[in-house]
Amino acid sequence: MSDFDPADLRVIAFDIFGTTFDWYSGVSEQVSRIAAEQGVTIDGGRFADDWRGRYIPSMRTVNSGERDWAYLDTLHRESLDDLLELHGVAAAFDEAARRRLVHVWHRLPAWPDAASGLARLRRRYVLAALSNGGFALLTNLVHHSGLPFDCVVSAELARAYKPLPAPYLTAAGLLDVEPGQVLMTAAHAWDLDGARAAGLRTAFVERPLEKGPHGAPDRAEDATSDLAVTGFGELADALGC
Amino acid sequence: MSDFDPADLRVIAFDIFGTTFDWYSGVSEQVSRIAAEQGVTIDGGRFADDWRGRYIPSMRTVNSGERDWAYLDTLHRESLDDLLELHGVAAAFDEAARRRLVHVWHRLPAWPDAASGLARLRRRYVLAALSNGGFALLTNLVHHSGLPFDCVVSAELARAYKPLPAPYLTAAGLLDVEPGQVLMTAAHAWDLDGARAAGLRTAFVERPLEKGPHGAPDRAEDATSDLAVTGFGELADALGC
Repeated sequence: MSDFDPADLRVIAFDIFGTTFDWYSGVSEQVSRIAAEQGVTIDGGRFADDWRGRYIPSMRTVNSGERDWAYLDTLHRESLDDLLELHGVAAAFDEAARRRLVHVWHRLPAWPDAASGLARLRRRYVLAALSNGGFALLTNLVHHSGLPFDCVVSAELARAYKPLPAPYLTAAGLLDVEPGQVLMTAAHAWDLDGARAAGLRTAFVERPLEKGPHGAPDRAEDATSDLAVTGFGELADALGC
Repeated sequence: MSDFDPADLRVIAFDIFGTTFDWYSGVSEQVSRIAAEQGVTIDGGRFADDWRGRYIPSMRTVNSGERDWAYLDTLHRESLDDLLELHGVAAAFDEAARRRLVHVWHRLPAWPDAASGLARLRRRYVLAALSNGGFALLTNLVHHSGLPFDCVVSAELARAYKPLPAPYLTAAGLLDVEPGQVLMTAAHAWDLDGARAAGLRTAFVERPLEKGPHGAPDRAEDATSDLAVTGFGELADALGC
């Protein structure tokens, strides 16, 4: 958009799964390891793909009003129970093991450029995590990674999932800024479409490995955004940080 | 309490004004400077005292139901307007100058032991700011100080002020822990009393200079708590971090 001016921004809001953290590697490795401890073999990469594949459909049932609010850990658990059946390994996972599996999403590796890029961007902007993950999940990801976010804003606070407008507007409202002073940064076209519809500015970050070696992540040409970059360092460059 | 065991804790929640940040120095210095820029003289220390003195009464009007929810910036602004009249300098402060004054509470110096103490505590515990300050205010304090909190939890999220139970229980709920797994850390007996009533554990931090050179802050002997320390470093020692 021709009227985009970084000087108007006050806050950069970061999507988390796939944009800031590598969910594919984190989930596949932890699932494979926990399965081995339970005495069974699971193809962690395929399992991670299948689990993530149920994420958007499960959120839609909440956003459509088909069911009451449920935070992401609950949706992850329901998908997990189904998938363990489908993979034929349900008997190997008791309640405690299933809880451990749900919590693998609370501890993921950050992309290599995240820490240094955020540190640069923080010199000029307030940095918020803005994700459909639950508040505890996001806090745990920040805790384990040590990434220098200023605050966590979860869809849980809005009791609605992105791409509905409520989570984006909740972030702007809590941070006392206009929606147009927030730059939503994400690796997913649908997230940026939702942000733009709520009045936010948008930056697309290309994450070619988001869905693992065989996946088909969104590419810059698929997304409409004010900025398109290949990492958080390039975002800092683009914003003059 | 004899049954207090640090191994049961998961989260340390920190009060902010006076406990983590030195509001007296920060407010008095900024008020004096802004007044000078407006061409008037204000005794910053006395003004800071008076302003803070209206904080608890103003919150009580919300917690009692006498008025609807209003976040701390609004309460600060109302107290400010009164105080500028009382100090005989109202004419020197237009809308923009008053907004600047309200925002001095968004940028305060941390106590010298805060950064190193939090860094040690973070190795073992999730660290939350838990304050009656608004979400934006707290985020700005974290941003400017760079203190390594994992998340910000504001009374604004509960639409009720400490010492009512709601802010404490909101923090535990969002972080997916039991109230008894949270250690509330504060320099004020009334805050710890509220936390304990909500089922949290409590640590008193003595801050002798909280109210400036002539103030009378709470002392350890005034407070009931599971732990009593003189700073965040001593808290890290007490918790074996």
